[in-house]
Amino acid sequence: VPRDPSPPDQLPPERLPPERLPPERLPLERLHPVGLHPDRLFPAEPAVRSLARALFEGIADLPLVAVHGHVDPGMLLADEPFADPSSLLVSADHYVLRILHAVGVPLGDVGRGEGGRDPRAIWRIFCARWPAFRGTATRLWLEHELVELFGVELPLSARTADASYDVIASCLARPEYRPRALYARFGLEVLSTTDGADADFAAHRALQAAGLAVVPTVRPDALTDPTRGDWRATVDRCGLASCADLVAYVAAARRRSVAVGAVATDHGHRWPGAEDLGPREAEVLFARLRREGEPDAGEAERLARHLLLQMAVLALDDGLALQLHPGVQRNHDRPTVARFGPDSGSDFPVPVNFTSALRPILERFGNEPGFRLVVFTVDETAYSRELAPMASYYPGLYLGAPWWFLDAPDAMARHFAATAESAGYAKLSGFVDDTRAFCSIPARHDVARRSIAAHLARLVAEHRLTFDDAAAVARDYAYDQPRSVYRRP
Amino acid sequence: VPRDPSPPDQLPPERLPPERLPPERLPLERLHPVGLHPDRLFPAEPAVRSLARALFEGIADLPLVAVHGHVDPGMLLADEPFADPSSLLVSADHYVLRILHAVGVPLGDVGRGEGGRDPRAIWRIFCARWPAFRGTATRLWLEHELVELFGVELPLSARTADASYDVIASCLARPEYRPRALYARFGLEVLSTTDGADADFAAHRALQAAGLAVVPTVRPDALTDPTRGDWRATVDRCGLASCADLVAYVAAARRRSVAVGAVATDHGHRWPGAEDLGPREAEVLFARLRREGEPDAGEAERLARHLLLQMAVLALDDGLALQLHPGVQRNHDRPTVARFGPDSGSDFPVPVNFTSALRPILERFGNEPGFRLVVFTVDETAYSRELAPMASYYPGLYLGAPWWFLDAPDAMARHFAATAESAGYAKLSGFVDDTRAFCSIPARHDVARRSIAAHLARLVAEHRLTFDDAAAVARDYAYDQPRSVYRRP
Amino acid sequence: VPRDPSPPDQLPPERLPPERLPPERLPLERLHPVGLHPDRLFPAEPAVRSLARALFEGIADLPLVAVHGHVDPGMLLADEPFADPSSLLVSADHYVLRILHAVGVPLGDVGRGEGGRDPRAIWRIFCARWPAFRGTATRLWLEHELVELFGVELPLSARTADASYDVIASCLARPEYRPRALYARFGLEVLSTTDGADADFAAHRALQAAGLAVVPTVRPDALTDPTRGDWRATVDRCGLASCADLVAYVAAARRRSVAVGAVATDHGHRWPGAEDLGPREAEVLFARLRREGEPDAGEAERLARHLLLQMAVLALDDGLALQLHPGVQRNHDRPTVARFGPDSGSDFPVPVNFTSALRPILERFGNEPGFRLVVFTVDETAYSRELAPMASYYPGLYLGAPWWFLDAPDAMARHFAATAESAGYAKLSGFVDDTRAFCSIPARHDVARRSIAAHLARLVAEHRLTFDDAAAVARDYAYDQPRSVYRRP
Repeated sequence: VPRDPSPPDQLPPERLPPERLPPERLPLERLHPVGLHPDRLFPAEPAVRSLARALFEGIADLPLVAVHGHVDPGMLLADEPFADPSSLLVSADHYVLRILHAVGVPLGDVGRGEGGRDPRAIWRIFCARWPAFRGTATRLWLEHELVELFGVELPLSARTADASYDVIASCLARPEYRPRALYARFGLEVLSTTDGADADFAAHRALQAAGLAVVPTVRPDALTDPTRGDWRATVDRCGLASCADLVAYVAAARRRSVAVGAVATDHGHRWPGAEDLGPREAEVLFARLRREGEPDAGEAERLARHLLLQMAVLALDDGLALQLHPGVQRNHDRPTVARFGPDSGSDFPVPVNFTSALRPILERFGNEPGFRLVVFTVDETAYSRELAPMASYYPGLYLGAPWWFLDAPDAMARHFAATAESAGYAKLSGFVDDTRAFCSIPARHDVARRSIAAHLARLVAEHRLTFDDAAAVARDYAYDQPRSVYRRP
Repeated sequence: VPRDPSPPDQLPPERLPPERLPPERLPLERLHPVGLHPDRLFPAEPAVRSLARALFEGIADLPLVAVHGHVDPGMLLADEPFADPSSLLVSADHYVLRILHAVGVPLGDVGRGEGGRDPRAIWRIFCARWPAFRGTATRLWLEHELVELFGVELPLSARTADASYDVIASCLARPEYRPRALYARFGLEVLSTTDGADADFAAHRALQAAGLAVVPTVRPDALTDPTRGDWRATVDRCGLASCADLVAYVAAARRRSVAVGAVATDHGHRWPGAEDLGPREAEVLFARLRREGEPDAGEAERLARHLLLQMAVLALDDGLALQLHPGVQRNHDRPTVARFGPDSGSDFPVPVNFTSALRPILERFGNEPGFRLVVFTVDETAYSRELAPMASYYPGLYLGAPWWFLDAPDAMARHFAATAESAGYAKLSGFVDDTRAFCSIPARHDVARRSIAAHLARLVAEHRLTFDDAAAVARDYAYDQPRSVYRRP
Repeated sequence: VPRDPSPPDQLPPERLPPERLPPERLPLERLHPVGLHPDRLFPAEPAVRSLARALFEGIADLPLVAVHGHVDPGMLLADEPFADPSSLLVSADHYVLRILHAVGVPLGDVGRGEGGRDPRAIWRIFCARWPAFRGTATRLWLEHELVELFGVELPLSARTADASYDVIASCLARPEYRPRALYARFGLEVLSTTDGADADFAAHRALQAAGLAVVPTVRPDALTDPTRGDWRATVDRCGLASCADLVAYVAAARRRSVAVGAVATDHGHRWPGAEDLGPREAEVLFARLRREGEPDAGEAERLARHLLLQMAVLALDDGLALQLHPGVQRNHDRPTVARFGPDSGSDFPVPVNFTSALRPILERFGNEPGFRLVVFTVDETAYSRELAPMASYYPGLYLGAPWWFLDAPDAMARHFAATAESAGYAKLSGFVDDTRAFCSIPARHDVARRSIAAHLARLVAEHRLTFDDAAAVARDYAYDQPRSVYRRP
């Protein structure tokens, strides 16, 4: 069976005139710099583009309100230079690793697992696979970082790998590329971290003393989600003898976080269900789950629901916004997780329904002044079907920004279009970046600000919103709304 | 932790030049009127916009076929002047109440519950919260009503509240703003109401004698959906001793409605499932559910399925179109419902699947001449996955117009794009407005007609449809199709 | 109740001036030919359209890689002239029959069932219902075939039925319209068929000897999916006494297909679940299911999962790509299927979830070099929620092209937008046409190539991708990617 036709271009490359040469064969000095087009992500229609540009200009330079994320405060505290381009931009970013892995790169070759790889070798592998990132949000962020932060304007490729590596490495050696200098350069107004219930927040206190508004966020999943594999060990380690103990322990951690400026907690339960079992049944379940080697999945799930509801009880008291990030099956590829650890790229969404699941929380707390539940989802179907309708009724419910796989321009356009028509914009939490990749924070806010501007520009062009109204919404989304939703009353 | 940066605009408002003043500080007489742009909701690209405009012009003035809705016929019969702007446009419209509630307005403050609030005070609250409606379909409708019906062109705000209130109130005092005068002004060709199985349709008869084509629609949910809390009481009140009795009772109501011009029935079951249990099992279930204080949810659901199938049996006989509005969890916020009653804004969608659920009806009746099942959904995922494929096969199945939270421009665009490619346009029921807000009917048809024109204009511009074909489809959607789907054979 | 207003155009047609005549009353010679606009399916905005045109030009003439489909190899082997326009374009195409049926045409009137109808009569019925196809992908394909293949440029209608029939019929009588001549004309580089596990592939061998690259694809559902009604009979017919026998039988069929150039197998299980039960439990289930008249649905489903996993075991060994087409409820309208057989239009999608279901395959084989699982879905919700995230991690997982009801321009635009931002383009399988309608193959590739060009043009216009990158992606999607995903390692 003939499966190998003659190649589409009959001339061998060496005989092609330069203007017909594919980019990978052009001399380096003739390669067109990527740059960052000032109109990137704006709709092509000229009138809409002008509107988008004007709306974006009104918000482009607002400070960054990074009220949810996973940056390590210890990195800011130490303020050491970043080691090298690869550990900064490749090996520690599971968005990048995921795509490299998907096109056949073993994780061990790009810095995961033991046996340190040469960072330049990792960078070469990454650059050679750059075409696999076409069209992804990750590529948009990386291009922003390369150009804005490091001045790397040539497109990455096997040929440009060493040159780009050297440029970035020489930047990283300079004091203005240390973490705290970047913090200042990024225009961060506040940076929230993610912390266990046993954290002492010493790093946050020290950073605040040094003038950095870094605040903690307690994420007590290892205690409040008994469906996790590490629940029993965590309960034991914390010396918790009862469900009441557990709740008191988390309550204390929350109070400690408040004292250091925390504005929210975070909860990554697999399902969003909440339910008040009452103290007696909760203790029975707690005791049984703590005892058993192989806990019953249904019982663990029930106690998780009970504990999520207790978090709402505490939130009403301590005023912390309750963030919910449900619907993810973590560590899907167990053999790889066993070898390389969690956050190696195999966490995947599952369908999730909120209407019935959140009722026990919303009926009881959703109308209480000061209570704020911010719900994120990686299941887009819930936007128009469940979350926008409910947020357009319950004063305490807010729609979190498009999360994770959905933190991308087209997905954001779908998010706005699916939620605003029933909930308006007042019930969106505004943008949060949710990253552990410190250098990607400005890029992520830039993409989000361009995306809301693009969305609103269309509405103005279609005479559905005045320009002034659109400008107010854009500013709310980029800045005022996260400041007001993530506050303590 | 510093959380209060200096405000973005450094100049205090009193020192800003007038052209830089935000609208809320402009003198009233300099405020730009909102008006209604003639090209609103049309795509921005000039060629597509021209096509949309031309397509819309062909359907803009067609009579309104309002074959599904919840307007009170008693209101038309009494023909009293509307009391005041707030009771007309705010307190009775759960779309409006919902959003006010979502931004923290207690329902008691805007006219729900006992203890009549001053309507002007309600109007002020509403106007002050006008920014919360940005981007919503409700705001589009209200702007249409304010401008077209009442000549209120200034944007609503706390400052314009009294002025707009006075304009509307003075309109309402005039005879041309009485219900029947508006009925004529709106260009209604027919107006369907929603009626219980015990209705006598006297109002409809009187209105028809007066020349208004107001026809009833029996919605027998309180009898045919035993999962409802009021089922047992309704069965008792109607003196129904058996399932056969119940079906006969509903059949009689349907026949009575036919005699007054009805063209359809309506069914709001939570799930769309249908199943023929046979008379023996149906009676056993009926007896058990009637007896028990706490009916078994599974059994109630089974009898609901049986009764929905009986509605199809009756429809084949009496020729009424069978409308199905499933997939809503009613009265989600029980404490609020207990205080303010149903329809206070907390009815929310749940996922719903149709392929298996509708099989017993479609296999048996879907190919029968004269049988028409019109299915609505607030779960968009069913459009391309289930409803369009099935409607593109079964002659008796029609896709209802985007419903409730989805009755909005972007959601309509998604609806058309998700259904037409597999089902074509011939299997859409055409637009129905589904409102209890009488004055919003023209606005809702206007938005829908603009939306179908916008959708079709894109297809013409992309050379997927000729202009003549698009014009025919637009006319079908706006006028001919609802007249032909909602008819008696 | 007045339900019959005067018609919208007050002048009777005979008194209308010709330019106002509706097309159905224009003299035939004045009817505007449909033609095929060179810019069809490209976005209207001029700059984006230019980009789309340029991108399309780069791929328009690439050979067709038809690596998945249902064309009968016997038809090509016999190479007989096609009988008539109706049997070629109407009666054998369930996409066409479905829509005719949906608007009330009995299947028996258009060539299904016994009692051969006059093909010209069928063609007249089809042409009279042509408006029902407006907006559908099927109409786009048919217009392409009519114009490109047969030179029929007048829009179909009752009036043009005979003329178009005659033109097509006279074409079909000519040697250049025989199947093999069309194969050459279509520019097919390879054509995959769909074959049972008992096929001998003699037709494929003969066609290959004649220079046609027609290769088989084993689809062993009748053996590997015990939930099917014909499973027991098929197992008996093949003389299979055990589950091990069954797997060995399929393995042998796969090897035979490899010898004739096969590159993949295909699996249409209702659910995508896979699970390794181990040999002992598999044999117990096999024995029980083979014995019972009414097999237990849960047990049949479990064995189906086990057998799907065995297919992955075999795929790793023989290097065939594993195609999965789940989530369809076949033969929904049982009375019609009983009368007219399967593939009469009543196969409909159901919701389907992949994250948990595919884990046993992906964990075990998804990282293995050479293993390729290509997943198709008719449930769009899985694109951004499950399939793109998983394909962006597992090197062995590829996203199949939009399938069936989703093989249409708007659905393809949604597909690209929902998958590329997280998975990139490198994890798409590229376009496959999946048709049994031989003459529609070029049309389907044309629509797909225009759709990817339209999608990428937008990204270039929004400065999210360079033109060169977009051109490379377009070529991959249209040609290189299916060749590389559907290969043997």
